[in-house]
Amino acid sequence: MSDKKLVKEITSRDEDFAKWYTDIVLKADLIGYSGVKGCMVIRPYGYAIWENIQRILDKRFKDTGHENVYMPMFIPESLLNKEKDHIEGFAPEVAWVTHGGSELLSERLCVRPTSEVLFCEHYKQIISSYRDLPKLYNQWCSVVRWEKTTRPFLRSREFLWQEGHTAHATKEDAVFETERMLDIYADFCAESLNMPVIKGIKTESDKFAGAVSTYCIEALMHDGKALQAGTTHYFGDGFARAFDITYSSKDNKLEYVHQSSWGVSTRLIGGIIMSHGDDSGLVLPPSVAPIQVVIIPVAQHKEGVLEKARELEERIKSAGLRVKLDDSDNSAGWKFSEYEMKGVPLRLEIGPKDIEQNQCVIVRRDTREKTFVTLDNLEGEVAKLLRELAKGIYEKALANMNARTYICQNIDEMNTKLSENGDGFIKAMWCGEEACEDEVKEKTGAGSRCIPLNEEAEGHISDVCVCCGKPASCLVIWGKAY
Amino acid sequence: MSDKKLVKEITSRDEDFAKWYTDIVLKADLIGYSGVKGCMVIRPYGYAIWENIQRILDKRFKDTGHENVYMPMFIPESLLNKEKDHIEGFAPEVAWVTHGGSELLSERLCVRPTSEVLFCEHYKQIISSYRDLPKLYNQWCSVVRWEKTTRPFLRSREFLWQEGHTAHATKEDAVFETERMLDIYADFCAESLNMPVIKGIKTESDKFAGAVSTYCIEALMHDGKALQAGTTHYFGDGFARAFDITYSSKDNKLEYVHQSSWGVSTRLIGGIIMSHGDDSGLVLPPSVAPIQVVIIPVAQHKEGVLEKARELEERIKSAGLRVKLDDSDNSAGWKFSEYEMKGVPLRLEIGPKDIEQNQCVIVRRDTREKTFVTLDNLEGEVAKLLRELAKGIYEKALANMNARTYICQNIDEMNTKLSENGDGFIKAMWCGEEACEDEVKEKTGAGSRCIPLNEEAEGHISDVCVCCGKPASCLVIWGKAY
Repeated sequence: MSDKKLVKEITSRDEDFAKWYTDIVLKADLIGYSGVKGCMVIRPYGYAIWENIQRILDKRFKDTGHENVYMPMFIPESLLNKEKDHIEGFAPEVAWVTHGGSELLSERLCVRPTSEVLFCEHYKQIISSYRDLPKLYNQWCSVVRWEKTTRPFLRSREFLWQEGHTAHATKEDAVFETERMLDIYADFCAESLNMPVIKGIKTESDKFAGAVSTYCIEALMHDGKALQAGTTHYFGDGFARAFDITYSSKDNKLEYVHQSSWGVSTRLIGGIIMSHGDDSGLVLPPSVAPIQVVIIPVAQHKEGVLEKARELEERIKSAGLRVKLDDSDNSAGWKFSEYEMKGVPLRLEIGPKDIEQNQCVIVRRDTREKTFVTLDNLEGEVAKLLRELAKGIYEKALANMNARTYICQNIDEMNTKLSENGDGFIKAMWCGEEACEDEVKEKTGAGSRCIPLNEEAEGHISDVCVCCGKPASCLVIWGKAY
Repeated sequence: MSDKKLVKEITSRDEDFAKWYTDIVLKADLIGYSGVKGCMVIRPYGYAIWENIQRILDKRFKDTGHENVYMPMFIPESLLNKEKDHIEGFAPEVAWVTHGGSELLSERLCVRPTSEVLFCEHYKQIISSYRDLPKLYNQWCSVVRWEKTTRPFLRSREFLWQEGHTAHATKEDAVFETERMLDIYADFCAESLNMPVIKGIKTESDKFAGAVSTYCIEALMHDGKALQAGTTHYFGDGFARAFDITYSSKDNKLEYVHQSSWGVSTRLIGGIIMSHGDDSGLVLPPSVAPIQVVIIPVAQHKEGVLEKARELEERIKSAGLRVKLDDSDNSAGWKFSEYEMKGVPLRLEIGPKDIEQNQCVIVRRDTREKTFVTLDNLEGEVAKLLRELAKGIYEKALANMNARTYICQNIDEMNTKLSENGDGFIKAMWCGEEACEDEVKEKTGAGSRCIPLNEEAEGHISDVCVCCGKPASCLVIWGKAY
């Protein structure tokens, strides 16, 4: 029987990165388009990646004392209007519900673009004493932002995410939470997505609407463009004052709570694709891969091959790994391409000769390295290869980030580096003036990504601002971004 | 230190069932009200019940070959209009988005009340051959129906649910799926919610908009009113024709697919409350209880008590159970009331005297029965008591259903039974005419709930319709409903 579809061709990554990306999301069966611009169908294979991300993060959140809740998806216009900066930031991009059935609503409702105001309204109801604090809430849901330009996973009008919202007695507690969640996000990206990130703080102009400070993790994609992969926000008592969320302290004084919020989204899937993928398709981090090992029987019509393949499937499954045996009648060649496209970390081949020698062949998706593995220690070898692949793709992404990180003293140098070496992160000093930030972006295309944390040692690369030459106040990472 | 809040009083269940229900959802911290009528906040304790329901059902779905996906929340008006019956059923109760930011949309979008048309649009894109079938998809999401009268969990404008949508090559396959999922729902209600249900088929007038046949599970609440707890729908090829979803069969003919859909929602939480709750609050089925065992140390200031309590907590946790130790400084009396209100199945008390005797006291939430349990076999005894409680509340709910199920021959008898014995299920024959169905409802308040399945033996209780006296075609279960 002929193969059910032809081997899928995709655009080369170096030829047209944007087209390569679109090819992958479609040909690896991650998404489908819907009739509403910017709203995508997340197909089973794409959604399974998201379920793995959810499972791992949800455990981390719960292990640190967070509880899940569900807030309504609708926000009355008057509620959204309560915090001035917040509404200014979000009003231009919300979807408005005006009718319920055939009736005109007395007040418009927006579909949540984020849920700060809903959590505030609820916190006002349930917080009264210091004994009620902290409140460490999280929700998994979809949100809507009416973007003009959209791309699957990276920027869509509706996307899935989690949003943590917390209330604390003191500023210190809220700042601790904001930084703790940033660390959790960064660890998760490194350990589970094998994607190195830089932790930093956003400049004033790039802060979340309503925040005192916004922290972020920034990753560098294969093409040298930055991806903001997650953010955490410290709100001070701004929302608490706007919503009148107070508690009576131990010495019986009425105090405002201090708040934080933090979120990551399906955008992370875009980050995985652009960090690890290659010209044959996806390369998935083992922790979130829907299938970690695909077993492909060779000469499966021969006696004993399928039986042995099923036995290996069972053994790998029993070891707690996600395994799939493809015993369909498609050719081995078709299967090889298919699971490469889908980024399955390990391919295990087993045929009559292997069985004779009590071994199998395992091929790594990232390096295509072949290993002959004795069946006696199959589970151990598979686990080891998965660990090595995870480490390998992390190091490759880190090497890309390092090779594409340039230290610059002035705008000319920035432009030279970017045109000679391609896009990347630029480390350069800044005076702190928004005018300079804007000018750098205008002249180089690279905006300020963040003021990196933990850069004390290497932070001071010049005394003067990369733009105006006046005294510099801090190091900034600049880059073009998704 | 005084207790952080007073012991909570709730309305008696027999005095005012509706008020009792509202008291429980608020005082057991299941929900909070939001600023939008009919949209509730699901608080951590309520959401944890839903997470347990999701976990158990999701595993059942995946074990039967279903895959999760995510469809957009917006449906363009023209797409909703494609299937005539479907739009007629849902148009009066959808929320319409008309603006994105400040821009008027060229076409209104409704917030999904259910996602048949979105799945159809997608299936048209991805199904072409018999090899692509069946498609067994499910999604967990929230949906919106602009109801006039709302009650937490039972009928809200936004609610959480899962919706399965499947496409099959043949009618037989689709009907099999529709009935299989009904069985899974019924088993789940019995085993995991300890809530007995009747499986049946809806009459023509009560079918889902667009379905050939709608199956349902109906439970009887403590007050004798019915709760539709889940539905599964067989669509035939109606949607396939409207959306032109075809596949080429093995002998290369173009055929329409046959479809099903099925869903349960947060309404199940309302069912749990009204099936098992009592005048002290919730009584939760062990399978979905966020806390299965609460440990309350007695005289916890005495040496060794808290240490022993923590040791027991660790042991119960290691046995895979959900346990909470309340070592707060609230009084034991306050704690007793609090965890009774929250419906925690087992309360474990441990004090100095118990420790001396190497035992503890375990109290069942449903019967308040006390058992002295030797610590040597603590895990085994806890597991046994949880099983017994699950069985006990199931049997109690079943006894309520049986005691409140009346066989009637005519409308007068129906009214007599309902007024003398209170609301309940009425088994009576029906001719099949909608006029009679309407008349029964008008004269008794009891609508047709379903034509029960598996009632061959006891099904024939009369030859004539309970309403018109003409020849009857089937047995119907009638009842007032939520």
